[in-house]
Amino acid sequence: MMKARVTVTLKNGVLDPQGKAIQHALSSLGFSGVEDVRQGKLIELELSGSDREKARTELEAMCEKLLANTVIENYSIELV
Amino acid sequence: MMKARVTVTLKNGVLDPQGKAIQHALSSLGFSGVEDVRQGKLIELELSGSDREKARTELEAMCEKLLANTVIENYSIELV
Repeated sequence: MMKARVTVTLKNGVLDPQGKAIQHALSSLGFSGVEDVRQGKLIELELSGSDREKARTELEAMCEKLLANTVIENYSIELV
Repeated sequence: MMKARVTVTLKNGVLDPQGKAIQHALSSLGFSGVEDVRQGKLIELELSGSDREKARTELEAMCEKLLANTVIENYSIELV
C-alpha cells in the first residue's frame, strides 16, 4: 500500500476569484499583511501495490486525464 | 515577504463524497488499484513582513477563524 498526495494549483496568470474572496474575508477579519491568496486542491490517494515507479507513471496519467485541467492548472505528485 | 501553504483535510471518519466521486471516476477510466481517495484544500498565501514566529501565530488564527472548519477538518501550516 502506498500513499500519494497530488496538489493541483492554478497556473500563474489564471484568475482565482476563490482566492481573492478568502483574501478579502481575511482582511475583513482584521488580518493585515496578506498580499495574495491562491486556492488549490489536494488529492490524497491510497494505492495498492508497492512498485513506486509504476505508481508514479499511473499518477501522472490520472492527473493528465482527470485530476487536473492542464490548460489552466499545474499539478505535482508526491509519493509518501 | 513570506510564502505559506495551508492544507486543510477532512478528519478521519468524515464522509468525503467528492473523494469517492474521484475514486469512481478513476476506476471508470481504467485505473485499478486506487483503494481510497480524499480531497482536501490547499491555500497558498503571501504575507508581508519577515517575522516567522508572528506569521505562524497569525496563520493559526486564520485557520481557526476562517480557513478550516475545525469540527470536521484538520489543518497544517507550512512556511516556505
